[in-house]
Amino acid sequence: MSFDTPEIGAIADAVRAKKPLVHCITNYVTVNDCANALLAVGASPVMADDIDEVADIVNIANALVINIGTLNARTIRSMEEAGRLAASRGIPIILDPVGAGASRLRTETARELAAKIPFTVIRGNLSEIECLSGGIGNTRGVDAACDDGRKDAVAAALAASRALCRATGAVVAVTGAIDVVAEENAHFAISNGHPLMPRITGSGCMLSAILGAFCASASPFEATVAACAAMGLAGEHAAKAAGDRGTGAYRSALIDSLSLMDSRVLAGGMRIERFPR
Amino acid sequence: MSFDTPEIGAIADAVRAKKPLVHCITNYVTVNDCANALLAVGASPVMADDIDEVADIVNIANALVINIGTLNARTIRSMEEAGRLAASRGIPIILDPVGAGASRLRTETARELAAKIPFTVIRGNLSEIECLSGGIGNTRGVDAACDDGRKDAVAAALAASRALCRATGAVVAVTGAIDVVAEENAHFAISNGHPLMPRITGSGCMLSAILGAFCASASPFEATVAACAAMGLAGEHAAKAAGDRGTGAYRSALIDSLSLMDSRVLAGGMRIERFPR
Amino acid sequence: MSFDTPEIGAIADAVRAKKPLVHCITNYVTVNDCANALLAVGASPVMADDIDEVADIVNIANALVINIGTLNARTIRSMEEAGRLAASRGIPIILDPVGAGASRLRTETARELAAKIPFTVIRGNLSEIECLSGGIGNTRGVDAACDDGRKDAVAAALAASRALCRATGAVVAVTGAIDVVAEENAHFAISNGHPLMPRITGSGCMLSAILGAFCASASPFEATVAACAAMGLAGEHAAKAAGDRGTGAYRSALIDSLSLMDSRVLAGGMRIERFPR
Repeated sequence: MSFDTPEIGAIADAVRAKKPLVHCITNYVTVNDCANALLAVGASPVMADDIDEVADIVNIANALVINIGTLNARTIRSMEEAGRLAASRGIPIILDPVGAGASRLRTETARELAAKIPFTVIRGNLSEIECLSGGIGNTRGVDAACDDGRKDAVAAALAASRALCRATGAVVAVTGAIDVVAEENAHFAISNGHPLMPRITGSGCMLSAILGAFCASASPFEATVAACAAMGLAGEHAAKAAGDRGTGAYRSALIDSLSLMDSRVLAGGMRIERFPR
Repeated sequence: MSFDTPEIGAIADAVRAKKPLVHCITNYVTVNDCANALLAVGASPVMADDIDEVADIVNIANALVINIGTLNARTIRSMEEAGRLAASRGIPIILDPVGAGASRLRTETARELAAKIPFTVIRGNLSEIECLSGGIGNTRGVDAACDDGRKDAVAAALAASRALCRATGAVVAVTGAIDVVAEENAHFAISNGHPLMPRITGSGCMLSAILGAFCASASPFEATVAACAAMGLAGEHAAKAAGDRGTGAYRSALIDSLSLMDSRVLAGGMRIERFPR
Repeated sequence: MSFDTPEIGAIADAVRAKKPLVHCITNYVTVNDCANALLAVGASPVMADDIDEVADIVNIANALVINIGTLNARTIRSMEEAGRLAASRGIPIILDPVGAGASRLRTETARELAAKIPFTVIRGNLSEIECLSGGIGNTRGVDAACDDGRKDAVAAALAASRALCRATGAVVAVTGAIDVVAEENAHFAISNGHPLMPRITGSGCMLSAILGAFCASASPFEATVAACAAMGLAGEHAAKAAGDRGTGAYRSALIDSLSLMDSRVLAGGMRIERFPR
């Protein structure tokens, strides 16, 4: 498989053409950012976490995004039920294992979800994916840049994403200073992004949300590469727009940049490479 | 009944003079936007959704806003209890039936609430109000502009709002590219607004929240027309302020514009018409 | 005890050096603002409210912040359990008794938490602290500036903070137009701040969140004075940056200003005075 830049870039337009309805069962910290990110890329969000309605919502949705950021017993049941039904409908299902490794509840929930549900994409930071792929992980909170100070971060991301991909069949994205995306026979690195991204909450959650929209509009591996590149590129553009104003301006500019993303912008700015170089 | 523009505009100042305390039982997606919108127009928000405290909060509130955006069994009980008590106190009660038609839980909850509680105003998009007024509705998510592509949207809004008004006694507002507000003997169209409003989450929820503040400060029909015009006009001003920066800037500018709204601005910019023209 | 301005200012740098992990059990209205405020000052937030994981999260956290803004039976249990464990670990514990006095549930929960948990700092507005310190309080909502129109607000704040400090052993901060911070033998007034701060939601909650970060990085009394001054000064800088654009711009600029706060900025702008002058 090889990537054609215009083809990947075109996925940004495909999302706007399809306007997929993305059902998110997600945390209450960044839920507003996720909804605005989905609207910004041209999708339509619906947030619904109650066991009494997830079946109906999955039934009209084009993708399901499960984010365990502020999980509890009530919402875990809803995640499992929604995932089961989404699988039977054949719509893309995304897992964001926020904080896996930071508590037994998160680790076990993420592992059980990954075992029970045939996820299309699993996206996390290095520690979260290492935790899921059977490694130990050293998750410290949920917003920490987990590859800080690890010179081998890309190699570790490649190993963890390959292992989790083999174990689950999902496309796996490990995001950090450099994002690594793995499917069975191909592995890509995306070097878009900006150091301000981990200085606001929600850049990871927003990426997971728009992964739902992108996977509803293109095949999973290409869609994942495109979404990672789009988010990273939006992060770069936001840094230019916000200048030295601070992280509040940056947060707003990040949504701005997502709302201006299209095939031309994406194809012109994305930096993706196949492993090994 | 006929409307005098300065009189409607004056309601924006009446809200700032009264500083009503508005109790919201609302969804966790746009709750922050609702709180900031209420503060922006000069009201004071209090968000409380637990059955063990809604009675006390209703007791000090000047209005109650019920929004079913992320409902569950726990909060539905609180909505019913709060609505019952608010009715016995005689304060204005607003219903935003977010997503009615998208799941049985939302449809049934919205219908039961509308049957049990004497709402002062019910505000939704066309599909939500059609769903409540006994039509079928074709709700697709909760942020979708539901009158897209319907050439008869205003006629349908008029029919649905009249039917729901007759059935419930509430003032009914169907918001979209053109808002329709109906009470028993009068129907108005408000053509303020901007196409960017449905491109962020929360513009509908914020309108429902400030309807609580406006209805606490003026009679329901006039207050509803004023709130719809104020929100739409804020949407227009925000588009000018945000320019082509994107939807993050637009979201922030929308709160800005609400915070600058007063009688002069509102009376000078609102576009309202009686049916039939 | 006397304060040295550079020493207090230096705490802003100590937070950035330590990057404390701050566990927040907080309300869903301002949770995103709290996370972004913590990241802005250089800390790392983790929001977790389920009884099945609070022990694990407290175990890796450098501070715990309990905010009762949208409490319910489920989260109250988690607050108590987390507080008990945080006390046994000896990490700083902050209480924000949002809305104490507005409902029996809030009043009783705040009082029970204060009785059971050895809080490091308790921060609230005048009515909330009066409610906790045994006075009656006249809490009106949760965002209202509760010292409006009280000429004796500073004297009342001093009395209430002293009483609550004596009763609990906590450093007590009463925030308003002028903040009062009391420990057993010293009382300071911080006159930083801006009238726009109560016109957005979350400035109090954000201060409570960053109190966790500051107390994890310096001794409690100095940390509390520094955090109050930092928040107030950020409020002043945000007003300059936002100009007359409105409260949406102000909200974003407040996070900006927190993200630019360091020892030089803080020491250069803070206005603190010992009682009595």
